[in-house]
Amino acid sequence: MVNAETKTAKEFDIIQQHFSNINFDSSGSTEIGIGDDAAVLSLSQLQQDSSKLLVSADMLCEGTHFLSTTDPSTLGYKSLAVNISDILAMGGDPKLFTLCISLPEPNNLWLEAFAHGLTQAAKQYGLSLIGGDTTRGPLSISIQIFGTTDKPILRSGAQVGDLVVVTGTLGDAAGGLDFILDPALAANFADDFQIHVQYLQDRHECPTPRAGLTQGFDIHAAIDISDGLIPDLTHICNASGVAAALNVDALPISGSLLGANDHAVAKALVGGEDYELCLAIPPSIWPELQARAKELGILITHVGDIIPSTDRTVTVRGWSEQKLDGVINQGFVHFK
Amino acid sequence: MVNAETKTAKEFDIIQQHFSNINFDSSGSTEIGIGDDAAVLSLSQLQQDSSKLLVSADMLCEGTHFLSTTDPSTLGYKSLAVNISDILAMGGDPKLFTLCISLPEPNNLWLEAFAHGLTQAAKQYGLSLIGGDTTRGPLSISIQIFGTTDKPILRSGAQVGDLVVVTGTLGDAAGGLDFILDPALAANFADDFQIHVQYLQDRHECPTPRAGLTQGFDIHAAIDISDGLIPDLTHICNASGVAAALNVDALPISGSLLGANDHAVAKALVGGEDYELCLAIPPSIWPELQARAKELGILITHVGDIIPSTDRTVTVRGWSEQKLDGVINQGFVHFK
Repeated sequence: MVNAETKTAKEFDIIQQHFSNINFDSSGSTEIGIGDDAAVLSLSQLQQDSSKLLVSADMLCEGTHFLSTTDPSTLGYKSLAVNISDILAMGGDPKLFTLCISLPEPNNLWLEAFAHGLTQAAKQYGLSLIGGDTTRGPLSISIQIFGTTDKPILRSGAQVGDLVVVTGTLGDAAGGLDFILDPALAANFADDFQIHVQYLQDRHECPTPRAGLTQGFDIHAAIDISDGLIPDLTHICNASGVAAALNVDALPISGSLLGANDHAVAKALVGGEDYELCLAIPPSIWPELQARAKELGILITHVGDIIPSTDRTVTVRGWSEQKLDGVINQGFVHFK
Repeated sequence: MVNAETKTAKEFDIIQQHFSNINFDSSGSTEIGIGDDAAVLSLSQLQQDSSKLLVSADMLCEGTHFLSTTDPSTLGYKSLAVNISDILAMGGDPKLFTLCISLPEPNNLWLEAFAHGLTQAAKQYGLSLIGGDTTRGPLSISIQIFGTTDKPILRSGAQVGDLVVVTGTLGDAAGGLDFILDPALAANFADDFQIHVQYLQDRHECPTPRAGLTQGFDIHAAIDISDGLIPDLTHICNASGVAAALNVDALPISGSLLGANDHAVAKALVGGEDYELCLAIPPSIWPELQARAKELGILITHVGDIIPSTDRTVTVRGWSEQKLDGVINQGFVHFK
């Protein structure tokens, strides 16, 4: 059934009712938020803060990015967190976002829970919601996020000799997804291991964008690890015209993943949705960056090096490509 | 099936292949467009152009906003046009946009046609695509648009004594939708009337955002007519704390709609998706605004007046509420 109109008083009520108190940005750049044809931002106010505006957009669809059984509060948190991660990967401060959401029906309980998770993420990282759209349709969420920075970190700046460093532990989200897709799998593990199963699921459902790490440093290139370390580092290599070599023994892998998964190393190399940062940095800043990470309580690990390009690939020292095939073929590519 | 990752080389190819040449904004504010974690805009460049940034977002879902049979080129045009309309309703110049699209499968023919229509609208109104996301899922399109202005026109500025004026003719899109939903309906009309049937369908599928009209004038309030004249004018009344009275005999109704529909006046009052502008203006600027409209080839009509509020309603002089009931109940409200 086609409705002739796309915006209604009722729709407006949904946004007002559930989302209008998401307002944690203190920069004062929003002159008009939700409620008119468009939000109005003061460019001079934004410019007081920084010289560049960063804009990124992501769409999450039920059945592709999350299951119908996903807790809506968790989904609300993650929807914003994955966008925050994009801004952090550019060296920016996340500030504002818009939300478009389609729902099969206006389920108030669902909306309240979703808004709760979304609000948590917004509050934690200091963002405000400035507008959006609510409509009827298969469940999907489209968020567009704005951040500011004076010095964007691009994918294209990696230089031969740079260290490749990553935050957090890798592969946990992919390991957690196994348990989410097949809950019976957890029964293979002893009771005292269930806390690790839960940890891995949490890492999939509730990533931790790594705020505050990169500002003020001469980071050459950055990306957030959404597709997996090798695929994302390959983006850096392609954009920068370099290659990279990873040291398999250096990969930061959690005890939970090592205990839960026979393919922990492969998950760490190509598992997606960790939303950790992968940086290419000059060796000279490594000590200070480590100190900053320690202050922030963020694990940071030197996992490899940028090397001269032969064909812009990522190789793994101490590892064979064959071992990856099984994991790579598990369908991590949309539209293959 | 849940895929563990949300972005892939393949997805990136889709954006690069089909959408990367949408680049018609000459303001030079985009330092980095498609291809990194976020687009980078120069705030000083944006500020050279204007002092405010306008941001709006809309989502269109198959089955709710368009049929599976809708021509993808038409859909591409309309998806952007309805967003352009929001920026124009704020008195802004549309400049940049992002696109999130979910598709059941990567259909190249469909994508080419969609990109063609989208490109046409972008070129016509001078916009560039700066980023987005392509993913697998039920067909839906989420566009976020950016514009600039020095003087945003809000919904809240209408004053008692203002004239209510509208662009174009009203109700055509709703009249056209009848033929789109029930193609057999056209058979009721003689061959020489089919050109009018086509005209009405075109008005539904391909709205004409009214650019260039409002700049430099002291427009008190504006909205684009997406829900219908009465519902949208009611938004102005609510935001401004006023009421409005429309003159039924003044409504601009096309000959095509009058000939095709027994409820032409009702369609003009509450039919949606015309994407014409509704403005509240001081009487003093009416002659000059008419002259501007004439230059631009835009029909503009004084259809009513802003009056003191009793209950912020829109009344229709020469019309009875009962006559509207049938149309209002045709389900133009999502989530009722």
